[in-house]
Amino acid sequence: MNPIISQALNAIEPLNEAAMAKAKARQAKLAKPPGSLGKLEALSIQLCGITGRLDCAFQRRRVLVFAADNGVVAEGVSSAPQSVTLAQAINISRGLTGVGVISRHFHAEREVIDVGIAYAGDIPGVRNEKLALGTNNLAKEPAMPRALAERALEIGIAAVKRALDESVEIIGIGEMGIGNTTTSSAVLSCLTGRSASETVSRGGGINDDSLRRKIEIIDRALCEWKPNANDPIDVLSKVGGFDLCAMTGAFIGAAAYRIPVVIDGFISAVAALCAFRLQPLCAQYMIPSHASMEAGYAMAMEELHMEPILLLQMRLGEGSGCPFVFEIASAGMDVLQHMATFEEASIDDEYLTEIRANERFQGGK
Amino acid sequence: MNPIISQALNAIEPLNEAAMAKAKARQAKLAKPPGSLGKLEALSIQLCGITGRLDCAFQRRRVLVFAADNGVVAEGVSSAPQSVTLAQAINISRGLTGVGVISRHFHAEREVIDVGIAYAGDIPGVRNEKLALGTNNLAKEPAMPRALAERALEIGIAAVKRALDESVEIIGIGEMGIGNTTTSSAVLSCLTGRSASETVSRGGGINDDSLRRKIEIIDRALCEWKPNANDPIDVLSKVGGFDLCAMTGAFIGAAAYRIPVVIDGFISAVAALCAFRLQPLCAQYMIPSHASMEAGYAMAMEELHMEPILLLQMRLGEGSGCPFVFEIASAGMDVLQHMATFEEASIDDEYLTEIRANERFQGGK
Repeated sequence: MNPIISQALNAIEPLNEAAMAKAKARQAKLAKPPGSLGKLEALSIQLCGITGRLDCAFQRRRVLVFAADNGVVAEGVSSAPQSVTLAQAINISRGLTGVGVISRHFHAEREVIDVGIAYAGDIPGVRNEKLALGTNNLAKEPAMPRALAERALEIGIAAVKRALDESVEIIGIGEMGIGNTTTSSAVLSCLTGRSASETVSRGGGINDDSLRRKIEIIDRALCEWKPNANDPIDVLSKVGGFDLCAMTGAFIGAAAYRIPVVIDGFISAVAALCAFRLQPLCAQYMIPSHASMEAGYAMAMEELHMEPILLLQMRLGEGSGCPFVFEIASAGMDVLQHMATFEEASIDDEYLTEIRANERFQGGK
Repeated sequence: MNPIISQALNAIEPLNEAAMAKAKARQAKLAKPPGSLGKLEALSIQLCGITGRLDCAFQRRRVLVFAADNGVVAEGVSSAPQSVTLAQAINISRGLTGVGVISRHFHAEREVIDVGIAYAGDIPGVRNEKLALGTNNLAKEPAMPRALAERALEIGIAAVKRALDESVEIIGIGEMGIGNTTTSSAVLSCLTGRSASETVSRGGGINDDSLRRKIEIIDRALCEWKPNANDPIDVLSKVGGFDLCAMTGAFIGAAAYRIPVVIDGFISAVAALCAFRLQPLCAQYMIPSHASMEAGYAMAMEELHMEPILLLQMRLGEGSGCPFVFEIASAGMDVLQHMATFEEASIDDEYLTEIRANERFQGGK
């Protein structure tokens, strides 16, 4: 394996137990029934374990949006033309799309990274890390050589390093790529041994014919290219996409550089699963967001032993679910840091002295 | 019925169809697959229907926390002593509790309203609308006379009017009252015809003995006082509490004064159900928040035909789930108002001209 990837994988350690113990001890002292803030408590403890600190506020936030084209769209598996990848990558960088408004609302930055949009040339506002003008058509040949898949993973790892260098404290992983629900279903089918009929949904809204074609193409590609389910990079290179590869790299990078990373929808969850299969510790650095409407989302999350935090029936992609969770994570830390302890909340004034005396006297009422 | 309550109930109208039609039309023009933002779209349309306006940002937010004591705590149904109601009401007003931190995090105000805390006297920082020093012990007699229940509903209605007069744009309904999971389960059992063994959970964390006692007391009270399930005010007065009554009033007031109202956890959901049973249109003004861990929550939500937005495993009460949804509502309006339309997002520059020409030439890829 490419040394940058294996270095990153080897750098991944479990969460900081000492910081988590401190966070747990503080949660236990806060003026509330133990555990009554549920996942908000668990999340704050996880965040302390990731960063090793109890004082992060997660104010600097970034959604990484990896954009690439997929050769398989030539088979008519998508309701939108391929040019929408380019158009939306531009729109995302300009803040005009769903993730644009939602990230602005929650004070998050966006970085759009072109890992393989089918347009030769720089796109202003979009970081150029283009590996090819889209992948090969996986219905006709493997999507990409393994070396390119590894390059894409490296790009994802580097994007996290860049975020960290720029003082970003929490990241989310999004994508833009017409045809990428097909590649995600293919990767998920291979990794879980499920037939495409289980892992495929309608993506952006395809008709029955396209749905049937999508299923056939995936089942046939898995038969033809025989990706090795125990080798996620082999799977990604044969039936995945540049976006999925780079996203997998970003999930690995987040764990290697110890920065919390939010999973968006279906495609993001499949990339998260690839990272988890490469190094199970990666999951400790991940935070789920919303329940995607794509059927495969729940399967990927089940494999990750995670459950979404938000039920918004969203299916937009772009990383649009991540900013909500940036704010929830930040609220969780706020509770940990600023809620009163039982000691601070004990009221030693006349109200309680009087009423407690009554309680003793009346025996309960 | 008390004229203030019947006036409020009669004032309730369906959502503004014209505003909703405009919001729907705008959502359809936004640059995304139709419906791909799911509940965020539906929520923005509902909010426009409630206010009749498309330009609300829901920046001024308030959690109404109704605090009261319940005579039934004398039966040992609660893990905390009664004095905790007073102590926590003070702490909530001082911003020291869970809802304190969470509401501050999401820029929401709090108003704590004493509708019957078992302490004779003003509590600084807490609005005094005290109706009695706690309710009667519903194991021994009906919780309160009907006239007091109606007064409590009025207090809830007035709290919403006050919020509106102070330019608050969205409210959430919370509570503080040791013993109020018992009263909520009792009201829910009566309204749904389910036995207490189905509607009761462990509240703040009681043991098996207390749980058994809680169930017996509710079943017996329903047998003894025979509240009329078709008359929610009768149910509230016989087996409810001042907090539940005032919260029911607040849900009615929200619909009467056309202000969106967020349901918190179990107790809040039971009050919402009471309002819905009094006037089904009330539900159109309600927004669910998080899935409470109390068993009865899901039952109340099923009756309301609603599903929570957040899965946080919280069971704190106090209105602590509401501020998250204030922010989500605000984000939904931000998308409606500021996301680019297909027209605004159409890119007429060289990138797309070139790539689209290629598309025509290559026939898809």
